[in-house]
Amino acid sequence: MQRRPSAHVREGNQDVRDVRTLGIDPDQDTAAVIEALLSRHIAVRREEAARSSDRFAEDVIDLLADVVLRGGRRTRPAFVWWGWRGAGGAPRGAGAEAVLKVATALELIQGCALIHDDLMDGSLLRRGAPAAHVAFANQHRAAGLRGNPDAFGVSAAILAGDLALVWADDLYETSGLDSRARRAVGPAWQAMRTETIAGQYLDLYGQGTGVDSPEESLRVAYLKSGLYTVERPLHLGAAMAGADPDLIAALRRAGRSAGVAFQLRDDLLGVFGGPARTGKPAGDDIRDGASTYLVAIALQRARAHGRHDAEQQLRAALGNRELHADELQRIRELLTGLGAVAAVEARIGRLTASALTALDQANLAPPADQRLSSLVRSVSAPPA
Amino acid sequence: MQRRPSAHVREGNQDVRDVRTLGIDPDQDTAAVIEALLSRHIAVRREEAARSSDRFAEDVIDLLADVVLRGGRRTRPAFVWWGWRGAGGAPRGAGAEAVLKVATALELIQGCALIHDDLMDGSLLRRGAPAAHVAFANQHRAAGLRGNPDAFGVSAAILAGDLALVWADDLYETSGLDSRARRAVGPAWQAMRTETIAGQYLDLYGQGTGVDSPEESLRVAYLKSGLYTVERPLHLGAAMAGADPDLIAALRRAGRSAGVAFQLRDDLLGVFGGPARTGKPAGDDIRDGASTYLVAIALQRARAHGRHDAEQQLRAALGNRELHADELQRIRELLTGLGAVAAVEARIGRLTASALTALDQANLAPPADQRLSSLVRSVSAPPA
Repeated sequence: MQRRPSAHVREGNQDVRDVRTLGIDPDQDTAAVIEALLSRHIAVRREEAARSSDRFAEDVIDLLADVVLRGGRRTRPAFVWWGWRGAGGAPRGAGAEAVLKVATALELIQGCALIHDDLMDGSLLRRGAPAAHVAFANQHRAAGLRGNPDAFGVSAAILAGDLALVWADDLYETSGLDSRARRAVGPAWQAMRTETIAGQYLDLYGQGTGVDSPEESLRVAYLKSGLYTVERPLHLGAAMAGADPDLIAALRRAGRSAGVAFQLRDDLLGVFGGPARTGKPAGDDIRDGASTYLVAIALQRARAHGRHDAEQQLRAALGNRELHADELQRIRELLTGLGAVAAVEARIGRLTASALTALDQANLAPPADQRLSSLVRSVSAPPA
Repeated sequence: MQRRPSAHVREGNQDVRDVRTLGIDPDQDTAAVIEALLSRHIAVRREEAARSSDRFAEDVIDLLADVVLRGGRRTRPAFVWWGWRGAGGAPRGAGAEAVLKVATALELIQGCALIHDDLMDGSLLRRGAPAAHVAFANQHRAAGLRGNPDAFGVSAAILAGDLALVWADDLYETSGLDSRARRAVGPAWQAMRTETIAGQYLDLYGQGTGVDSPEESLRVAYLKSGLYTVERPLHLGAAMAGADPDLIAALRRAGRSAGVAFQLRDDLLGVFGGPARTGKPAGDDIRDGASTYLVAIALQRARAHGRHDAEQQLRAALGNRELHADELQRIRELLTGLGAVAAVEARIGRLTASALTALDQANLAPPADQRLSSLVRSVSAPPA
């Protein structure tokens, strides 16, 4: 197979012994620290794995490196870091390094989620490039291997996601947490990974039943991404800093509201946003029949106003993989016309306000107070 | 969806605080201890997860429980235990309990491997019951959900495998290893999970290229299952007991030979063994075009003896998903006639003898010496 570019991996291969020598202040640029750590961790693991098999390193590890290093806002690690800082964690030193490694591990879990989700959803694009299963199928075709390229793509993408998941745990395990921090953070780390898988299952199941209840769709949004994007990262960071239960509870409250707001924004972008923002074609949520709050509210309003035509059109579009651009445009107009878009925006506003109030009640020391408020605003803000 | 039977899970839900109270001596019946721990761990995690979602617990966790508790010889945990005991680890106490939990975690990794492998291979059966992706598709049909049942089955099985993988790491992490044992065993734990995924990828890739070299097929057999079935489990057990490098090296040598012998026996059973042994239809390896040593040797012999007809028949059968029973029977006769079966049996014999010699050189104290010798013989023995 064709050798994939591995510039990210090579960059990471420099002699960087710990976070301090990266020369980047995590308070100033958390994302840059996370990317350097991610890159370094992958480079070290790649070198080990290449001793068993160059083929595996070139095909699977380089693809995984590309998926996790090609983009992403590093939102989850930022919440871990500011949860830690907000709870009094030091900006540098051994504890801070361990926290940054745990934060980096979240990006590997996210790598698994992206690869497996795209496969499950049949998405062809991710961050503007072919999804992992598509990239593997293309490699199979280019190399002229026998067998079905698409089946190969699916299998290889399952393995690449599995690799991301075990590497996330390896990074967590070797992060250098002291035993107190390890005990404090363990239950949240464990719960988070199970919750995320549960949320993905409920999302999938909801595509089968067609969840109509707005409240049920919020619950799925909370489980599948709210918890794992904001609440648990804040919880992880604060727990590692030894935060007391009241502080953890306040941060989790803030995270719960902000996380759901994040998913509601994502749902709007999934229908209205262009590929420039998400790297994915708009409308995929409709084509997949995803049970979003946006759609559930629209259906509820159509029923309440006796708009049977609108309800029927919406139901026909949901899960229609062949939905054309003009039909999608009509669905957008319906969602807006029924007031569902405005209702979602209003809900995002209320959730963000609740999150900011909870942060306020947490009485965090500067600069964490300001930084967390602006992170909370940014996760659910419309794209600039 | 239909509620699945969860008797195994309920059994595990009794008040069992630690391994001692199980009332089973792991030296006498390692498998029974492992099954009790597995059952208990799943019950505890199920209870937590059900707080977020009963649907997830009933559909996904109960299926996973069924996969890991319905059978299996608990071979990997037995090698962990006897690696520990052989290196002087105590038969009871806190250290022994931690080791048994790490050993149990291997059964969860194996659960992921079974679920994801069956999906990748398109296998319909596992241990005589529908494979996980088939079971999920059947549930989707029975519940009359919308969308494609097979696509639902694939997605749900990906998630069930992911869950098994993260639970394995949770069990490892919470096993109660002391910090010395944790440091000693960490690198082997990490390497093992990456190696297994690498081996699975090479196996998949080999189906695409049609590996003809017997030595390359042995390398894949070693990576995809030999390492992870015998060598690494022995390594894990011995490392947790604080074994010195010489002892670890001797046990790993024994494990390397025994692990490859195990896979060669599995390859023979995959073509000649009946469903009674494997719970899977014989011939699936041929239908998948798996690059086994058995087939590579047969192709090499056909070429060496100018048997172009035999070579062509073999190549036509490999990867032919529609292969009929009578054609499979013809392939069996060819494999035997070409002397490939005898060559594999001879190789298994030599590998087993090497493994026993390496064990002998390790000078283990009783009863580990006898128990490991008989385990090594049994993993590659023909079914009784």
